[in-house]
Order: sequence, then structure tokens, then C-alpha cells
Amino acid sequence: MFQKRLFHSSKFVLNRALTPLTHVKHPEFQRNPAFSKITNKDVDFFKTVLAPNNIVHESDPESVNMIQYNTDWFNLYRGSSSLCLFPTTTDQVSQILKYCNKQRLAVVPQGGNTGVSGGAIPVFDEIIVNTSKMNKIRHFDAVSGAAVVDCGVVLEVLDQYLEPKGYTVPLDLGAKGSCQLGGNVSTNAGGLRLMRFGNLHGNVLGLEVVLPDGTILENLSTLRKDNTGYDLKQLFIGAEGTLGLVTGVSLLTPRRPKAVNVAMVGLDSFEDVQKAFVMAKEDLSEILSAFEFWDGDSVGVVKSQMMQDVNYPIDGEHAFYALLETQGSKQEHDQEKLDEYLGRLLENGVAKDGVMAQDAKQVNSLWGWREKIPESISKSGTAMTYDVAMEVPLLYKMVEDAKKHFGEKNQLGPGKLYSNLLGFGHVGDGNLHIMANLDGFDNHGQEAMDEFVFSWAMKNNGSITAEHGVGVSKVNYMNRAKSPVQLALMRTLKNAIDPNGIMNPYKVIPEH
Amino acid sequence: MFQKRLFHSSKFVLNRALTPLTHVKHPEFQRNPAFSKITNKDVDFFKTVLAPNNIVHESDPESVNMIQYNTDWFNLYRGSSSLCLFPTTTDQVSQILKYCNKQRLAVVPQGGNTGVSGGAIPVFDEIIVNTSKMNKIRHFDAVSGAAVVDCGVVLEVLDQYLEPKGYTVPLDLGAKGSCQLGGNVSTNAGGLRLMRFGNLHGNVLGLEVVLPDGTILENLSTLRKDNTGYDLKQLFIGAEGTLGLVTGVSLLTPRRPKAVNVAMVGLDSFEDVQKAFVMAKEDLSEILSAFEFWDGDSVGVVKSQMMQDVNYPIDGEHAFYALLETQGSKQEHDQEKLDEYLGRLLENGVAKDGVMAQDAKQVNSLWGWREKIPESISKSGTAMTYDVAMEVPLLYKMVEDAKKHFGEKNQLGPGKLYSNLLGFGHVGDGNLHIMANLDGFDNHGQEAMDEFVFSWAMKNNGSITAEHGVGVSKVNYMNRAKSPVQLALMRTLKNAIDPNGIMNPYKVIPEH
Repeated sequence: MFQKRLFHSSKFVLNRALTPLTHVKHPEFQRNPAFSKITNKDVDFFKTVLAPNNIVHESDPESVNMIQYNTDWFNLYRGSSSLCLFPTTTDQVSQILKYCNKQRLAVVPQGGNTGVSGGAIPVFDEIIVNTSKMNKIRHFDAVSGAAVVDCGVVLEVLDQYLEPKGYTVPLDLGAKGSCQLGGNVSTNAGGLRLMRFGNLHGNVLGLEVVLPDGTILENLSTLRKDNTGYDLKQLFIGAEGTLGLVTGVSLLTPRRPKAVNVAMVGLDSFEDVQKAFVMAKEDLSEILSAFEFWDGDSVGVVKSQMMQDVNYPIDGEHAFYALLETQGSKQEHDQEKLDEYLGRLLENGVAKDGVMAQDAKQVNSLWGWREKIPESISKSGTAMTYDVAMEVPLLYKMVEDAKKHFGEKNQLGPGKLYSNLLGFGHVGDGNLHIMANLDGFDNHGQEAMDEFVFSWAMKNNGSITAEHGVGVSKVNYMNRAKSPVQLALMRTLKNAIDPNGIMNPYKVIPEH
Repeated sequence: MFQKRLFHSSKFVLNRALTPLTHVKHPEFQRNPAFSKITNKDVDFFKTVLAPNNIVHESDPESVNMIQYNTDWFNLYRGSSSLCLFPTTTDQVSQILKYCNKQRLAVVPQGGNTGVSGGAIPVFDEIIVNTSKMNKIRHFDAVSGAAVVDCGVVLEVLDQYLEPKGYTVPLDLGAKGSCQLGGNVSTNAGGLRLMRFGNLHGNVLGLEVVLPDGTILENLSTLRKDNTGYDLKQLFIGAEGTLGLVTGVSLLTPRRPKAVNVAMVGLDSFEDVQKAFVMAKEDLSEILSAFEFWDGDSVGVVKSQMMQDVNYPIDGEHAFYALLETQGSKQEHDQEKLDEYLGRLLENGVAKDGVMAQDAKQVNSLWGWREKIPESISKSGTAMTYDVAMEVPLLYKMVEDAKKHFGEKNQLGPGKLYSNLLGFGHVGDGNLHIMANLDGFDNHGQEAMDEFVFSWAMKNNGSITAEHGVGVSKVNYMNRAKSPVQLALMRTLKNAIDPNGIMNPYKVIPEH
């Protein structure tokens, strides 16, 4: 029905200075000596499994062929793998992992490389298993809406496939043009419409996973309900590739909405944003599909970086903006509900101004202003991104406190340590994204912001990662974020399923 | 807004002949000699943990005090425990399990005892840990809708608590007046509105679980999103108490609908039921909250057992009936959508007749006819209940094939081996309940029906249990229902978390 502009492209990686190696920036990561180093004999084995054009092997990890797989899009993490494999079948993945497990070769699974926690990037010389060439849509059932796909199918490609069939994907995120279903599942991706369709733990019907020893766990059920024993697929949703490599996904897809309406409003305070949200739940209830907010500073960055000659949809300057979307089956009903809601917002002075999209083009345009925020801050320099969850009333207080904290240290503003600091997010999910531009690759600056944000979240019973995952970026905070009992149980699971620890080491669960 | 009549009461248990002991009926279950037998020393220890009125200890498992905990409501499973414990706090549960684990005493967790697979009933002399006295609602957040409750809170009690706050529970089942949240979570209960709100893997925000060694896993998050490491709670959802005892539940509750509409239609064939369902998804989309069906034989049993003097809501006799419910935020919009839908159904000849509830009382009354089906067949004699999932087009074919199969053997009909055989279920979830009355406790008859139903489901890529769980009733079919890889991974998890195997032994995962 409508598509989003994508805010990233692999070209970014190639035209910029390289970020320092992750293990140099974070010397607390030590290469596990139990892992073997890749030899020519190993490469020879992989040549018996994969066609020559599905192996990239370069002794120099910074070579033009390898660097795009050794670096993340945000340019914050870098590894030094010399080998990237592109299996095309589940059986090939099985042969690769079986061999690596036997030879104690560490592996990092990589999908669309759109993650922002460094989870899909090697820390040292792990073999990259990239799933981009496993990209078949295997099966779709138009009665139940169950779609069975290869792990490497791009989210937007699946959505375009579903469109003429009257279905859509139950998750949507800015990276939809590059991110892959296997990565979405492995990171338990949330995104823009989680409040409507729920999370992947509810929407994934089945998975095919290659376990660390090469065993194929085939469980691509298309049934909506199945209580025969432990729900094994749940283990791998959000495990960030540390328990196995997801090769196939069976996903429940909802009916494509017949009507989509989008409105943007300007508000004076985060209190008013909350009021607008509670009123939206009351008035729009079952048709409310997204409730996003951002602050005035976000608008400034977008305008300066990307949209200098374009007028903002709402006149004047507001402290906060909210975008809300409805999806329903009858345009005139939804429009009536939305009109009444917006009327109530303005009458009660909760919103100061507002605009409603009149057609699909305007729907795109309004969403564009929201989606350009992360892209713009990335264009402004080295970008740090955070993703915390808290109870809604506290959501923006973190940004205010950060501004105060770093402002008092004279570190915030043009030309200073942090040139920009802004907040936006998914109000409906209690999920805040806080982003900041860092002066160059100042490691101390990054650590200080990490410490502030993560400590604040933990102190306030929040989560240090609502949807982005732990990867390498938060693994050193896990001992503070989780209880010893929780960490012990995570380790029990990891050791039981991956006793040699070859799958995505150094990530998610801290060593000690 | 509206309440359901409950179809069961513990009085049933007391006024009927006892079913044979499970291990007598199924001699393939052998008591595991690694488990200790309960001694007076053990009981003395439990007396130091629990108040005297929270321990039931009777040397005779058939004594009036013990029998209700040794038997299930459907009167199909019976154990011979001599000890039932009623902890009131998580700490007490922890002390109990720690002791049992050390002493190798086997434990069966029991909630409202409304399960139908024998999962909450001892097979031999397992200690029953009954959660009925852990029944506090701990916390409710009216902004997010997160409710944190003790495991023993009854589903309907929580719903009544939420009603004045404008929220409701996201699951609803016939047993709501007795079933407990801990049991709902442990069996991954589905029920009547799963198609609208999704399953518990999506709606449970956090759990508190006592692990088999007594360790308390505290993870009662109220956050909607949290990707910090493995999502441990998922392990215990649907594990039927074999990995630990769920003591606390944090549940995301949705807004209570402002408008509820219910219609019942009569149809000529299951083809027409499917057509009506697809049209409902098209026309009612986001407001469709339930789509149930049953066959003409179900009506016969209800009328003969319970409603002899009451007219059926729809005149004449129809081969099939469907009940559909909408839940929305604006009565006139929902009514208009439903009117148009029902008009289309009748015009196209998909439905032959229909009736719409005009008020809350009629809503109750129409639901009553659906909910009385299992109660009526239980009143008709020994009742067997099955719960299979399949792709929707095959859903009723199983019942037709069963009728043909047992009819040809002259085993179906009044006074024969199976006096009734009927089908009903949740079309929206591809979930069929097939129920039959058995002549007395004829074990061969039960086994023959098990074999027919389960084989049919497996042959047709279905599930042998969509929502009821494995318990003891299906454990002997698990080797056929699941692959060796799936079973091996289940055993790996079980051994890693419960190495002594004390939690709910003999259930869910087959020994060999």
C-alpha cells in the first residue's frame, strides 16, 4: 500500500573513515584461545561445500571485499575476519557448522547487517556466515496467512510479495529494505507496529535452525496453535545467533489494512504526549497501529541535514511531535474516529497544532519526517544510538537528565564532545531511542554516554535494550542488568546447546 | 462487561465412580525407583514451612480429603499421592522444592485442576503442590495495562478486578471461573479470543519461577519490550510444570472493549463455515474477536442434557452453526460492519439463518449454547476430549472420518462403545475439539479413539494438541509427533534445568 524510504545503504560503509577495531576500543574483549585460527585447509573444506563465488577469503580484513562484512552500518564496530561464507541452502549451513564445531572455529551469523549493537560483526577473526543468498519465499497459505521463508529474505521483499495477496508483514522498521527475516527473528526485532501486532514471540509460527553441531532442527510449522511439548523456537527468537543459525522462518502475517490514516501533531510537553497517547488508546483502540514521538531537536537535525528546502508539515516550533497511525478495514469509520480524536486533542489543548495525511503520498511524507531522524544524525557525524524501555511517564526524563548532566560538564553543543543529543521513540511500547553525535571516535565519550544511559535505565527499572539487543555493545552491562540467577540460567542454556561456544562468541552473555 | 457460566465444579469429582488409577490403565508408566517415598520425616519438614491447615496428608489417597487432588475433573486420570501442600508464598515454594530436590521427592504442580490432559494429577505418589492459596493481585499499571499476579489468581477474578479499570484479560476459556493464571501460563492456554489477542508467548511480560532446586528466578518485568539476553520466561510457558513452578505472572492486558456484538448463524456444510470465516476476516478484520463453530450433533447433546425446555436461538436444524463476536471501541461502527457482513452471508446463501444478540443478556445466552457443549457431553457419561490443530480446510474432515470409521465397526450410537461423537472449535485458530462419550471406563475404547484421532492429525501435518497440552494423555504419542532432534533438544533442556527430574515426572517428554 505504501512504502518507506530506506535510511541506509551499504555505500555508507565504503566512503568513510574506519572505526577502530572493537577489541582495540574495548580491550576487555580477549580472543578465546580455545578457538582455532582459519587455515587454508579449512578454506579448502569450505570449497567442497560452497561454489567459489560464495566464498570471500582475503588475508587482509580491511580489503575492499571483506570490509563491508567486518563493519556495521553505524560504523561503531569492526572485526578482522578473513573469511565470509555465503551458503545457499540449509544443508550447506549444516555442513559448515558441523565442520566449525569439530574444528573449534568460531562463527558469527550475519544477515542484512542492519543491527546496531555489533551482534552481526566479528569481534576477532570469527568466520562470517552471511545469509544473503538464502532468499527464497518457500510457501504462503492465503487462508491462514502463514508465510514460510528462507532466513535471508528481506523484510520489504516479503511485504511486497504479500501485498497483492491482501496480507502484510506484522513488523515494520526503518531498515526494512535491507534487514532479513532471520536477523529480525534472531534479534526479536520490534519496530513501528509492535503495539498493534505484538512481538515475534507471538507471531513466529515455526523455525528451521541449524544447531551449533550442524544438526538441523526442522520445526517450520504453519499451525497457529501447537502445544506438543516445549516451544523450542522461542529459544532462538532474540538469541542473537548464539544458540544456532536460523535458516527458515514461518511467520503469521495479518490482513493488509484497507484503510491507513496518519496524523502528526505538535505538543508543548511530554506530559501532553502521554495524555495524547492515553486518549488515543481510548478513542482509537483496535485501529491504533503506531504512536511515535520525537523532540524539537530531532526536527532541527533532520532539517539541517536532509530537508533544508522543505517546509515542516506543522508550522511554528513545538517542543514535541507525535505521529499516529490507524489501520482498519473501513476508511470512513476510521476517518470518523480519527477526526473525533484530533478534535478532542485540540479542544482540550493537549495538542497545539496538527495535520492529517490526505492520500498515500502524504502518509509517506509524514512517516518520512519520523524515519529521517536516525539517518540525519548518522549523516551529522559518528552516531551513537540507544534503545531503552521504561514505564511511559519516565520515557523522556532520561533525555532531559542527559542534557542537564552533559550540559553542566560543557560537553553538549556544536563543536563539543556531543554535538547533538535527541530523543524519539515508540510511546506505545515504552521504548525510547536516544541518539547523539560524538566528536570523531572518542572512546571516552562513548563510554560516558553508555554509562549514563544504561545506569539511568537500570536505576529506573527499565531495560538497557528494548529491541536492538545486546550484541557486543551491552554485554559488559549484563552483569548489572540481569540477576545472577538469570545469567546462570542463560549460561546453562548456552552450555547445553553450544558446549564449544562457537556460535557468536563474546556477545550477549558476559564471560564472567 | 459480561460473564460466562462455568461449566464445571469440583462437586462433580465427589459424586461419581472413581476412574481407574492412571498407572493401572496405562501399565507402560512405571514408577521411577530413583524417587524417594514420602516419610513422616518429610512431612515433619513441611510442617516447619507451612501452617498446619496448608498441609493435607492422608495415608489413603482415596480419602475424601485427598481424592479431589488425585483426580481430574473429567475423571479420566487418577494418582495416589498421600500429600498435598498449599504454599502461600514464593519463599515457601522455594523451600519445598529445595527440600524435594535434595531428597529426590517427585512433585506435581497443581492449579485450578481444570486441565484435561492429566498434567496436574500425580501418576504415582508425587507430592502435589497446589497453588490455590497464592492468590494475590500484586500490582496493576493503568497506563500500560501490565498486571502482576500470584500464580493462583483465578482468571475470572482477575478479569473482574480489571473491569472497573477499563481493562480485560487477553485470554478467555470455559474454565475461567476455576483455572489459575499459573496453570494458564504453564499450559500455554489458548481459548476463545486467541485470534484477536494472540497467545501467551506474546502476552506474558514476565514470570517469577521457582526452579527445581529451589532457586527463585525473579523476572516479573512489566516492560512491553526487553531484549536483554535470552527471553527466559518463554521456557516455562507451556512447559506444564516440568521445568519449574510458576509462582508469579506479569501479563499485558488489553483495553476492555466498549462494544461487544455476537451473532449466531446456521450453515449447511463445513465449506460454508470456511467461506463465512474468510468473509469475516475481510469484513470485520480488526474487530473480529472470536469465530467458533459446532456441528448439529453438538446441539443434540446440549438440548438433551441441559436445555430441554429452551428453544434454540435459530429455528430448524442445520448441519453447522457458527458464533462470531466483535469487540471494538464504537458500537455503531461495529454494528454497521456486522450488519453488512451478515447481509452478505445471507444474500450469498453462505448462511441459511442467523440471529444477533440485542443486549448483554443475549450475548451471554448465545455464548452459553457454545459453552454448554463440553459440559453436556460430560454429563452424558465418561467424556473423552481431543484438541487438535490442522489447516482449516481439513478441520471437520477428521470428525467425518471418525464417524465413518467407528460407524462401520458398529461402535457408534446410543448404547454402543461411543454413544456420542461431535466436533466444535475455534475456526480462527485452526483448532478442533472432538469429544466422545465412552461406555464406562472402557480402556480399549479410549485407546482406539486416541489412536484414530492422533494418527489422523499427524498424517495431515496437524498437531495432536493445539492448546490442552501433552500431560500424561499424549506423552506416549510424542515419539511419533515430534522428530528425534526435537525430542533430544527437549531432553537437553529438561536435564539442564531439572537434572534430578523431580518436576512433574512421566509427563510431556517420553522417557525413551
